[in-house]
Amino acid sequence: MTYFQCDYASGAHPKIIKNLVATNEVNTLGYGNDRYCKSAAQKIKKACDTPNANVHFLVGGTQTNSTVIYSILRPHQGVISADSGHIAVHETGAIEAKGHKVLTLPSVDGKITAKQISDCFDMHKNDPVRFHTVQPGMVYISFPTETGTLYTKKELEELSQICKDLNLPLFVDGARLGYGLMSKECDITLQDLAKLCDIFYIGGTKCGALFGEAVVITNDTLKKDFKYIMKQCGALLAKGRMLGVQFDTLFTDNLYFEICKSAVDYAVRIKKAFEEKGVNALANSQTNQQFFALSDEYLEILSKKYLFEVYGKTKDNLNYIRVCTSWASKKEDVDELIKDIKSL
Amino acid sequence: MTYFQCDYASGAHPKIIKNLVATNEVNTLGYGNDRYCKSAAQKIKKACDTPNANVHFLVGGTQTNSTVIYSILRPHQGVISADSGHIAVHETGAIEAKGHKVLTLPSVDGKITAKQISDCFDMHKNDPVRFHTVQPGMVYISFPTETGTLYTKKELEELSQICKDLNLPLFVDGARLGYGLMSKECDITLQDLAKLCDIFYIGGTKCGALFGEAVVITNDTLKKDFKYIMKQCGALLAKGRMLGVQFDTLFTDNLYFEICKSAVDYAVRIKKAFEEKGVNALANSQTNQQFFALSDEYLEILSKKYLFEVYGKTKDNLNYIRVCTSWASKKEDVDELIKDIKSL
Amino acid sequence: MTYFQCDYASGAHPKIIKNLVATNEVNTLGYGNDRYCKSAAQKIKKACDTPNANVHFLVGGTQTNSTVIYSILRPHQGVISADSGHIAVHETGAIEAKGHKVLTLPSVDGKITAKQISDCFDMHKNDPVRFHTVQPGMVYISFPTETGTLYTKKELEELSQICKDLNLPLFVDGARLGYGLMSKECDITLQDLAKLCDIFYIGGTKCGALFGEAVVITNDTLKKDFKYIMKQCGALLAKGRMLGVQFDTLFTDNLYFEICKSAVDYAVRIKKAFEEKGVNALANSQTNQQFFALSDEYLEILSKKYLFEVYGKTKDNLNYIRVCTSWASKKEDVDELIKDIKSL
Amino acid sequence: MTYFQCDYASGAHPKIIKNLVATNEVNTLGYGNDRYCKSAAQKIKKACDTPNANVHFLVGGTQTNSTVIYSILRPHQGVISADSGHIAVHETGAIEAKGHKVLTLPSVDGKITAKQISDCFDMHKNDPVRFHTVQPGMVYISFPTETGTLYTKKELEELSQICKDLNLPLFVDGARLGYGLMSKECDITLQDLAKLCDIFYIGGTKCGALFGEAVVITNDTLKKDFKYIMKQCGALLAKGRMLGVQFDTLFTDNLYFEICKSAVDYAVRIKKAFEEKGVNALANSQTNQQFFALSDEYLEILSKKYLFEVYGKTKDNLNYIRVCTSWASKKEDVDELIKDIKSL
Repeated sequence: MTYFQCDYASGAHPKIIKNLVATNEVNTLGYGNDRYCKSAAQKIKKACDTPNANVHFLVGGTQTNSTVIYSILRPHQGVISADSGHIAVHETGAIEAKGHKVLTLPSVDGKITAKQISDCFDMHKNDPVRFHTVQPGMVYISFPTETGTLYTKKELEELSQICKDLNLPLFVDGARLGYGLMSKECDITLQDLAKLCDIFYIGGTKCGALFGEAVVITNDTLKKDFKYIMKQCGALLAKGRMLGVQFDTLFTDNLYFEICKSAVDYAVRIKKAFEEKGVNALANSQTNQQFFALSDEYLEILSKKYLFEVYGKTKDNLNYIRVCTSWASKKEDVDELIKDIKSL
Repeated sequence: MTYFQCDYASGAHPKIIKNLVATNEVNTLGYGNDRYCKSAAQKIKKACDTPNANVHFLVGGTQTNSTVIYSILRPHQGVISADSGHIAVHETGAIEAKGHKVLTLPSVDGKITAKQISDCFDMHKNDPVRFHTVQPGMVYISFPTETGTLYTKKELEELSQICKDLNLPLFVDGARLGYGLMSKECDITLQDLAKLCDIFYIGGTKCGALFGEAVVITNDTLKKDFKYIMKQCGALLAKGRMLGVQFDTLFTDNLYFEICKSAVDYAVRIKKAFEEKGVNALANSQTNQQFFALSDEYLEILSKKYLFEVYGKTKDNLNYIRVCTSWASKKEDVDELIKDIKSL
Repeated sequence: MTYFQCDYASGAHPKIIKNLVATNEVNTLGYGNDRYCKSAAQKIKKACDTPNANVHFLVGGTQTNSTVIYSILRPHQGVISADSGHIAVHETGAIEAKGHKVLTLPSVDGKITAKQISDCFDMHKNDPVRFHTVQPGMVYISFPTETGTLYTKKELEELSQICKDLNLPLFVDGARLGYGLMSKECDITLQDLAKLCDIFYIGGTKCGALFGEAVVITNDTLKKDFKYIMKQCGALLAKGRMLGVQFDTLFTDNLYFEICKSAVDYAVRIKKAFEEKGVNALANSQTNQQFFALSDEYLEILSKKYLFEVYGKTKDNLNYIRVCTSWASKKEDVDELIKDIKSL
Repeated sequence: MTYFQCDYASGAHPKIIKNLVATNEVNTLGYGNDRYCKSAAQKIKKACDTPNANVHFLVGGTQTNSTVIYSILRPHQGVISADSGHIAVHETGAIEAKGHKVLTLPSVDGKITAKQISDCFDMHKNDPVRFHTVQPGMVYISFPTETGTLYTKKELEELSQICKDLNLPLFVDGARLGYGLMSKECDITLQDLAKLCDIFYIGGTKCGALFGEAVVITNDTLKKDFKYIMKQCGALLAKGRMLGVQFDTLFTDNLYFEICKSAVDYAVRIKKAFEEKGVNALANSQTNQQFFALSDEYLEILSKKYLFEVYGKTKDNLNYIRVCTSWASKKEDVDELIKDIKSL
């Protein structure tokens, strides 16, 4: 069975494994106070061109989202998000569990606009009894989004500007950041992203690591005491060096980006193959996750060899599936899938 | 200036004031362990025909909603509500602040249906990775709703049945319960309501009292240790007898219902007057709150003598206003308003 | 039965009742936006000599403590308190329920010292892995304390200074403030208190009102958006005017202080009578609450006419009781109690 | 520099590394639904002789403690713990951040007794206003404790019995469980432990793994929906197989216990050497953590070659240090340290 079901189905990139093995017997201090974390943080700051940023390493995406948001908001504030945002739908209420409402805005292609944020803020501000409603306190977006789409540089600049104007920290969930930045349709760089938001993270779990997300805090006002909150949230790994070694490897010789690139190329090829076969893509994805409406017949045939994520039925009674490539996807497997799609 | 702005603009019904004055110098134990609370609870249980219910007296609506919901849900559960529900929009995130997501369903006339609850439950249950999403743990409805509408007996029976089937406690926010039950279009009784839900409250703040909401718990499994949670939530009044005296008065000689009845009649008359004048009602309200789209001209004229709640503009650029009567509204004021509407 | 059991056993001072009755039919806006709240706030600011303070009216003590502390702390911070502090023992974990640890310090006579705070702060600061422990974020004291004692002006100045030095907001729980300030042994004024802390409240529930606590915020950085947090905490009364009328009355013609004074005098007389009889006072109280170790025999005799709070047994197997006077205690009742004590 | 500073200074046991490498390219489902987790759970259930237990794999200790406790308690309940318990002092208020008070009892040798629990429970139960205080809802103990001591079988049976009698779930923090069970002075087995408590965890982070704690739930009433709460708490690893592979390795051929045994032996030898030199042990530890009061002179000499954890000064102005061995400690390093101690 070949997995195109998700991007966290295999272990880590061989170079990471190699370095974990090589450093396994080294003794270090715990909780991120080790040379590997320091080195990784340096390399990340350099790659982001943010020499004054703080870099912290956490374990997983839900943990990172909830820890970051919890560290920023005051009790009466909520976080603005697309209604399709991961924090709004797929984290078992982790944000609410820490006391905050997710203020959802209707999304198009998984994205929200500067205008929507501005309107949401104004509606609240102009409400004469606004203290009866949750105050917008920050903005969360995903890059790429949950449906694989990308904000353009212009869109991101507009979001960034309105957030600055309204004093709302902008937080970018980069769980699949590598796949976003490596998309041919992406017109921003890591440095652009770092400049345009206040805090973001570079996803490792889905982009070559065993696990790990690197939070980059560029806005000085958000830096204070972050490590306390990590610890309280159970997000401070005792053997932090595991995270250091992994990100140090990923940010050596551009590995993080190299390994994400092929996955996006593969995904786009698969999309093209399905579309040529008359299968509709269900999202305008430009990255490694592709969504399709597949007939029972097609699904049955392909499922003999391939594993996809099946979410349920569309209203046309087709199967709503995700085909997901990753840094670990092999060219020969992709070629074969495409051949099999053509033969449907 | 005559107030039609809200139903909490004046003090309490004279009989309540009389009894508060009469008992003012009596000494009692605190925290609800007094004869007045006991007597009021007895009368309420009798009125509800629920001899085994537990009755608790809290101070206000947001406090009651958040305390009740917090007492029922486990950490990973959320409360199903109409998207127009008070807990979803006007409580500054009080439910989220206590850790729970409000799972909103699109409402028609402020109401949700048994089918919607069933679908929401099934969608969650059938999700293969359902532990990534908030589990529906209870259902919240308002009676009357935030737009003044009422569930019919049939609708309520269906809601009740589905909630029983799915093991979801049904909680009814009765902040304006008196106005609901006294509507000519209401086909349920207090006893029906008590039988059809697991926990509900009888609103005092808006229905004749200075303040106070009487929570009635009929489902045995929800009774345990409720008073602890009240105390933790700052919802246990030291001089609980204030609540006891007020509800004891309201549930003597049917006072609660008598005084709510006129308010609803007045509101319906005002609605008729506006409609005859070609002013659109913005909700299908059958109770004491009526919502209209009023031109600037009309609003300006009427605002010289009357205070309404003005929420903002409709998309037709009319003024979205609420006209609200209460137990304290006077017939002569209503007559005059109607006369003035006719003269517009 | 004569009540000396607590200071919330009766209704409100007759002048408050009179004004509530007189204003009962007046219509006002809700949620504290009424003339009475405005007037009361003005009078309180004048009495405190803090023209720039913000004044908010809440309903009860636990509610006030938890709302204030929640509004100040960041997620990883805790509140320093005497181990005997109300928030540490008698609020069913209300502070923890809002996410914060109470950092208790051993108390003498219910009090903590500047030195203790300094040491606690330093111990945390000097801990190389301090992010594994809760960061002290503010200081809570009660005035008078839970055992009826008082901080001297010198002690309070020292607390104030260390809190300023360490940037820890100082919050004073004044649930029984009137009884404290009116004690003969009290060497501070309301103005002193207002100057020496960052936020405090003037207790109404136990000092003449039906209910109500007036929060005074003098530190500008603590003022922002307090009303949102009140609403979220269920602490924003719809008919806020009830609180306004009560505090307006209490702060007219010095009523608040006048009515507390006699209660303290009575309590001190009772203490003297018990001590002359060889009954040990269990706390060094200078205010309206007095604590004694009473034999079964004495308790049995006195309990025929008087109600005390009985907490349990001391280790000498005596009855640990509280005798509590209030603004409502009558001279003749106190005289009779003293006579009966003498006759034991 | 030789590390005796903590038990999480190096990577994982070579067999774990070997298996992680061997399985690195295998594709599996995420979130614990993989063959390795299933196999590891089976082996753990067998080792515990609890065929009906539920086993879940989490990442770290603080995360595990807070997730477990949060999953068990109702809002008004707290967790009973020794005042020296990890949850009470070293988790940055993680328990409080999830809404619950830690009810600390004074400990002797890091332990609490059945009698203390019973007294604490009774004191609460017999309080006439008990709803003003936090209700004891469960009991937390560490095995071994934070100071390296062990409950005897008799002590544990008594704790277990009182917890059953009082209906308080007993939760055992086994972050260093291997070192406890392998102590020569330990008179209980893993099976005993599993039988005597309701939920416990087998620590991996400090006992041979890169990271990971295996929660074993034996009490049926605590099993429901645990995975939802893990997800919400950010404690559900996407590549759960990492945890599965590690615990599968640890519970193959008794590895977990084998590798912990030597560490305890080493620690006891070091303790003996220090004591023979007249250095006082600061705790009655029987496991891999040993605590000493070391003079500046001794510390300076030994610090040239060895790293210890230095906590600060004792009241005798000696250095309060921890010497910590682990599964990774080497015999030759221990021999050398002992030789150097003798030469002091």
